[in-house]
Amino acid sequence: MKISMYEASIPTFLLTLRNLKAILQKGVAHAESKKFEPALLATTRLAVDMLPLTRQVQIASDAAKGAAARLAGVDPPKFEDNEQTLADLIARVDKTIDFLQSFKPEQFDGSEERTITIPTPRQTFTFPGLVFLRHWALPNFFFHVTTAYNLLRHNGVELGKMDFLGALPHAGAAA
Amino acid sequence: MKISMYEASIPTFLLTLRNLKAILQKGVAHAESKKFEPALLATTRLAVDMLPLTRQVQIASDAAKGAAARLAGVDPPKFEDNEQTLADLIARVDKTIDFLQSFKPEQFDGSEERTITIPTPRQTFTFPGLVFLRHWALPNFFFHVTTAYNLLRHNGVELGKMDFLGALPHAGAAA
Repeated sequence: MKISMYEASIPTFLLTLRNLKAILQKGVAHAESKKFEPALLATTRLAVDMLPLTRQVQIASDAAKGAAARLAGVDPPKFEDNEQTLADLIARVDKTIDFLQSFKPEQFDGSEERTITIPTPRQTFTFPGLVFLRHWALPNFFFHVTTAYNLLRHNGVELGKMDFLGALPHAGAAA
Repeated sequence: MKISMYEASIPTFLLTLRNLKAILQKGVAHAESKKFEPALLATTRLAVDMLPLTRQVQIASDAAKGAAARLAGVDPPKFEDNEQTLADLIARVDKTIDFLQSFKPEQFDGSEERTITIPTPRQTFTFPGLVFLRHWALPNFFFHVTTAYNLLRHNGVELGKMDFLGALPHAGAAA
């Protein structure tokens, strides 16, 4: 038995997006407890020439919905990138989760060999689906979710690794 | 056709570890150009109660070698966690790459269903191999490599996303 492209992608995106939502909610709670406007967190950066939290969440969303759509051979929905508050970003994550949940596993059959083309400002990348998932979609996705976590953590939100890993399925306490 | 557990794990770890090595080398070059001791970067943290760069690299190494060993059903080698300089951390990444390259794809056959047990201070997790790879090994690995990148970027090392994604295989410039 081998694993399917659906099994290697969609459950990863879904669990991690749910964790990202919970992390952003902890950001809101932190701001409220410290009596500052949660949207201030949305503009924070780890370096002046790095992207702010808003863009980290938007790009994580794009990485997940773009990967699912490209592997299934459908057009990804266009989101407007007009989020400004943490509540907006949480809604963006919810929309992304809804989109990912609309797929059926069989839509990914054979996608490991489907040719995926990624135009970027500098270069157009062309990969077989497996290489795209492994070396483009998943690294990009985890990069931006981790950076969102690091931004909030750097700004005082109380987070730990289990917030990032989330509610693990099939995990049971052994003796 | 479906994909194998080997294909879904080892190439990801290998490419990203090579990228981590190049990122650490840029850290050394940055320190030398600014005339400070590169080992100072090894102690930096994004928050006072987060782990320093040294531990981020050690845990990324452990996530990769632990995942490969557990999926293949062998004991992971124990590394001493005695790295202090960036050169030490680069050597640690090299040792991890060497270990991952020692596996043959057939050692991972059937590992999607192998029971994997992860003891942690708070709880022991038990997963089928696929769930372990998807929700434990890959997220942990990417979390610590991204945090290492963010730490160096936050401290002035000139890095961009392509340093994180690395030299992508099978990527060609289209017309």
